[in-house]
Amino acid sequence: MTKIAAIIGGGVIGGGWAARFVLNGWDVQVFDPDPQAERKIGEVMANARRSLPGLTDVALPAEGKITYHASISEAVQGAQWIQESVPERLEIKHATFAEVQAACDVAAVIGSSTSGFKPSELQQGAARPEQIMVAHPFNPVYLLPLVELVAVGADAALVEQAKAVLSSLGMHPLHLKKEIDAHVADRFLEAVWREALWLVKDGIATTEEIDDAIRYGFGIRWAQMGLFETYRVAGGEAGMKHFMAQFGPCLSFPWTKLMDVPEFTEELVDLIAGQSDAQSGHHSIRELERIRDNNLVTMMRGLKAQDWGAGALLNAQETAMRAGTVHGAVAADLDAGKLVETAHRTVPLDWTDYNGHMTESRYLQAFADATDRFMAIIGCDAEYIKSGGSYFTAETHIRHLDEVHAGATISIRTRVVLGEGKKMHLFHEMMEGERMLATGEHFLLHVSLETRKPKPPAPHIEAALVRFAEGHADLPTPEGLGRAIGAAR
Amino acid sequence: MTKIAAIIGGGVIGGGWAARFVLNGWDVQVFDPDPQAERKIGEVMANARRSLPGLTDVALPAEGKITYHASISEAVQGAQWIQESVPERLEIKHATFAEVQAACDVAAVIGSSTSGFKPSELQQGAARPEQIMVAHPFNPVYLLPLVELVAVGADAALVEQAKAVLSSLGMHPLHLKKEIDAHVADRFLEAVWREALWLVKDGIATTEEIDDAIRYGFGIRWAQMGLFETYRVAGGEAGMKHFMAQFGPCLSFPWTKLMDVPEFTEELVDLIAGQSDAQSGHHSIRELERIRDNNLVTMMRGLKAQDWGAGALLNAQETAMRAGTVHGAVAADLDAGKLVETAHRTVPLDWTDYNGHMTESRYLQAFADATDRFMAIIGCDAEYIKSGGSYFTAETHIRHLDEVHAGATISIRTRVVLGEGKKMHLFHEMMEGERMLATGEHFLLHVSLETRKPKPPAPHIEAALVRFAEGHADLPTPEGLGRAIGAAR
Repeated sequence: MTKIAAIIGGGVIGGGWAARFVLNGWDVQVFDPDPQAERKIGEVMANARRSLPGLTDVALPAEGKITYHASISEAVQGAQWIQESVPERLEIKHATFAEVQAACDVAAVIGSSTSGFKPSELQQGAARPEQIMVAHPFNPVYLLPLVELVAVGADAALVEQAKAVLSSLGMHPLHLKKEIDAHVADRFLEAVWREALWLVKDGIATTEEIDDAIRYGFGIRWAQMGLFETYRVAGGEAGMKHFMAQFGPCLSFPWTKLMDVPEFTEELVDLIAGQSDAQSGHHSIRELERIRDNNLVTMMRGLKAQDWGAGALLNAQETAMRAGTVHGAVAADLDAGKLVETAHRTVPLDWTDYNGHMTESRYLQAFADATDRFMAIIGCDAEYIKSGGSYFTAETHIRHLDEVHAGATISIRTRVVLGEGKKMHLFHEMMEGERMLATGEHFLLHVSLETRKPKPPAPHIEAALVRFAEGHADLPTPEGLGRAIGAAR
Repeated sequence: MTKIAAIIGGGVIGGGWAARFVLNGWDVQVFDPDPQAERKIGEVMANARRSLPGLTDVALPAEGKITYHASISEAVQGAQWIQESVPERLEIKHATFAEVQAACDVAAVIGSSTSGFKPSELQQGAARPEQIMVAHPFNPVYLLPLVELVAVGADAALVEQAKAVLSSLGMHPLHLKKEIDAHVADRFLEAVWREALWLVKDGIATTEEIDDAIRYGFGIRWAQMGLFETYRVAGGEAGMKHFMAQFGPCLSFPWTKLMDVPEFTEELVDLIAGQSDAQSGHHSIRELERIRDNNLVTMMRGLKAQDWGAGALLNAQETAMRAGTVHGAVAADLDAGKLVETAHRTVPLDWTDYNGHMTESRYLQAFADATDRFMAIIGCDAEYIKSGGSYFTAETHIRHLDEVHAGATISIRTRVVLGEGKKMHLFHEMMEGERMLATGEHFLLHVSLETRKPKPPAPHIEAALVRFAEGHADLPTPEGLGRAIGAAR
């Protein structure tokens, strides 16, 4: 059966829903009176196409079709899911639902993207109130998994159907059992927004300082554990009750300009400690600490690769650490008769498998980084690459000789086997102290980044490369050089 | 000169500071009257050692020494930095500073980890008030970069020195120009905590639901951009003023139980829009959207590798997508006379370099994933691996034949070159449609995960492997099989 979703109201949120559905194989029928709707949704689709399909390690189903319709009644034809994302005014919502219900399948889910209204408000005066529920997503809708599903007053079977559809789209239906203005997440956002406005208004901090206070600190924590689990870990082995006893009384301080405070009774402490046990009690605090640290390292190193936020700070630190050491040296500083140290680093947590050994593909990452470093040494650095030339790897041969764990300090020493014209043939040896872990043999060609075809490097680069090739020619031939798989067997 | 830091007060925060300093090459002198201090700091140090040194791609300097001292006056001897992390009571802080200043170098920085007190409060009655400043870190101190530096009343040159030291430790000194109770970040934490207590107390949501509402939604956003930059992007090309016009009036809704609201004047809108331009105006909204999506994809895929939070959701989606397709099939379902499709996936954003091409090491990651998939097909799946056997890669040979961009759908077809006893020799071909991108030749040995030595696989695995080896023996020999680097030249 063709799966069809109707998107009523485009824009950033409606467009994000359209992208989620289309990229998961649904046909999408859009109604939006804005003459710019197709262009706007097209822009969201373009962002979604570049980011969503690669999230999973298997390809998504073939894309569905997206069509634009002149009326709500046409857009909802045959739809199993109807998502309303019209402006946040109750009379507009009510008029929209009346048109939707006059034409749609009675078995379809009608979800509202409202951030403020409760389902009981949306359902007022509806032909079939039990068909309408809140399905509140978060921007960018095509990437973030959270959907607040508030379905008080809706048909129970339809709610289960809604949860199954959202899960199949890779989303997390957070099914709230009670309704409340603004649901849950936006109440937090509003509390922070309100306090942030005070801080800016009173000249305590700028918008940039506030953003830094969030993204370099609790923002990274909350990306993986949220509020209570984070505090559970902070409380240590003594647990959530202990944490509450420490932090709870602060509630009586008038820190924020926010005055209405729940009374800090033993009953409330027990309620929270009990829920926290149910949520996280299957992990010890030590386990949670390690899980948290694995997650933080992984996200921070991910941001490092993007050179953004906390990751940009790491890159700045690294640049400062390289300065004045052999890891910031250029060819002229180095003895061409010796192997070149192209890496000296600690195996990070995100490079290891579940039992702490360095993962296969990270050996190549370390070798590739070492190659980049050697390129920089001979003058093929970021600035030269910007001018249009670089080396591309054509072939790689890795021999895994021994295992290594996260936390070990490894180094790589590099030999130039051949360096002439466009060709560069390197042999890397990865060591932990005197223990050889792996060798990486790499054949690279210098290319024009414009044509993507081989061409000779700049003369100063070839000269530096030849100097190492000649200097290394007299060194003993390393074991394993030039070997083919299966040849020795 | 030996760099020495004195840590006054251990615990989670003091221990985190100790770890930051020691792992960055400082000697650390600890004073803490708790007889358990050495054990407690040792536990923090163990967590820090496994996670911090791998954050950067160059090794940190050699570790400093950590020593424990019987008095404050002994602990501060020779220290350039003294960090106070004693309990949050002003009279204890004052008594501590008196002892510190009676013995320490007048040129040392005295930082306080206080989350609540203002520097003017800390400085009251001090011998040298200008030496004391707030340096408020975030747990885990050894990983999170944020330090709120509030130095009103402190010596300006000393503040610059403090900023330089914190930066050298990989931290971000957020230098606040005005003092306020609880500084900035904790005011947000308190606002959210307060609202969360209400939600739990009123039975709207459990602690787990609240954590999910945070970590599957705005938590991931805030890990990279914070509040204002996120909203700037949400406002679209119309900019921050447009966003404020939409969201600002919501402040008059009594959503949260928090009543004191700044008046929403044009002046406040201009102030915020102006600061936001200064912060982010050098990127267009389209650029910011792409930067944001790159970051989100990178962090979510990082969490996927950790099988946690939003990443665990992706794994669940993937398992559901594999079910009932060839990507969930086992050997008995497949024709052994044909190459095996071991991957069908989209190149994700975090696999690409700055110009969108798939990065060298990700080819091996894709091949290694394909090998894992082939192992699962022949019965060497997660359950079998738990029983103590698996295949380890001994050698790899990759030929890079063509480039591929993020967003492309690639597939891998796998040929068994040899499969007998402990040996498995595979040849993967990576394709985008009919275009061959790379080949990966891999020699693996079956091992005991206990001894890490070769041993034969379980009979059903060997049988399944042999069946494919025999079935593939009659297929034409692929180009490039068994080749050594340099051999063809």
